[in-house]
Amino acid sequence: MELFYSNHTEGGVIVLDAEESAHCVKVLRHRNGDEISVIDGCGTLFRAVLEDADPRGARARITGSESNFGAHPYRLAMAVCPTKNIDRYEWFAEKATEIGVDVIAPVIGDHSERKVLKTERLERLVKAAAKQSLKGAIPTILQPQSVRDFILSVPDDALKIICYCFDGNKRTIAELLSPAGPSAGDSALPEIFILIGPEGDFSTEEAELALSRGWVPVTLGSSRLRTETAAIVAVTQVYSAF
Amino acid sequence: MELFYSNHTEGGVIVLDAEESAHCVKVLRHRNGDEISVIDGCGTLFRAVLEDADPRGARARITGSESNFGAHPYRLAMAVCPTKNIDRYEWFAEKATEIGVDVIAPVIGDHSERKVLKTERLERLVKAAAKQSLKGAIPTILQPQSVRDFILSVPDDALKIICYCFDGNKRTIAELLSPAGPSAGDSALPEIFILIGPEGDFSTEEAELALSRGWVPVTLGSSRLRTETAAIVAVTQVYSAF
Repeated sequence: MELFYSNHTEGGVIVLDAEESAHCVKVLRHRNGDEISVIDGCGTLFRAVLEDADPRGARARITGSESNFGAHPYRLAMAVCPTKNIDRYEWFAEKATEIGVDVIAPVIGDHSERKVLKTERLERLVKAAAKQSLKGAIPTILQPQSVRDFILSVPDDALKIICYCFDGNKRTIAELLSPAGPSAGDSALPEIFILIGPEGDFSTEEAELALSRGWVPVTLGSSRLRTETAAIVAVTQVYSAF
Repeated sequence: MELFYSNHTEGGVIVLDAEESAHCVKVLRHRNGDEISVIDGCGTLFRAVLEDADPRGARARITGSESNFGAHPYRLAMAVCPTKNIDRYEWFAEKATEIGVDVIAPVIGDHSERKVLKTERLERLVKAAAKQSLKGAIPTILQPQSVRDFILSVPDDALKIICYCFDGNKRTIAELLSPAGPSAGDSALPEIFILIGPEGDFSTEEAELALSRGWVPVTLGSSRLRTETAAIVAVTQVYSAF
């Protein structure tokens, strides 16, 4: 199934932007009367019939919709320090979207070698990954912020998990999440925040701030994982717990 | 810690090949008397002291060794159909090595679009990944073979898992592996084989052959995953079960 994206509706009509319109009309050669499937990026899948196959601004009349399309039964925000090699971070964002993530927060730590990150490419990547993996919701990419600001921004009552390399008795994500299972509804979805540090790990001050704010240190197992691999292992462990 | 690789020892002396020697002597500028760490690719880490810093064939005297260096408490063979885009397969091989895998078997299915795969690049990638993630063992890359031949090659008493998209009541990898935990010793390590199909999934004949040979169908969850993502989710679920 080919999915298009648009968050622009006028009454009962969906309007595709120039890029999506060109893909729909020029590449896939859809014509008036064809039924297309469009996600709004917020979780809804629309069925719609093309009534103006304009390659610069195609319009389709909505004939049906499905909410929570391809949704997962949890809310997961991954705060991950950008890697030196940005390809590895983009790979993490794409794979996390396929598996199931809601928010990706690039965070800059005291030991981060990369202090800046442009989010435009990430936004394009996760949109394509959401469409490819048949999900109605596209993960939100936050603007880069410091690890400290992110720690302080998270609500007290959320489950807050920090993966870091310091020694100490740590639990696993599975232990923290079990017994887990699909919840009653959106309002009841468990909110999970996971923080993954840079190649140089968190500074002692960052780790102490997190612990003082109720973040729970976990181990991802005995293997020594790169930042982006640790992030995907954490996403998979959350995904697998539900 | 910087690891070198060599499977060539003469008495109590390790001999590095030209590539490793150049990296050790020219790039890292090690000199006679320096202690270096060398993996043999089969699980052992050697401590050795350089006694001939030859950039084409450095030699170091072994002063100590550690077996099962960075080892995981299971034996996992991942048989995965090559992806159309080979970068995605190479990415899977690198990440699986970091997380923990022992054998990577490129298998060609009836619905595989890619029927050939050169393994030289994969071998270099997993060697680099093993060194980077501090593992003494380097995964074995098998030569490409058909899905049928692989199914028939696996011992009857091993745990054989097939991930495919056909409907039907399926269990999860965690259910099949629990209760799991570190085993008594190498001889007792659980042997796990996991088969992941191509973009077009397995043919009915391939799936029926696997089921007739005792392969257990599992689900990797509700997300629609690309071949290489499914493979990494499976590796992570095995890794997380121990």
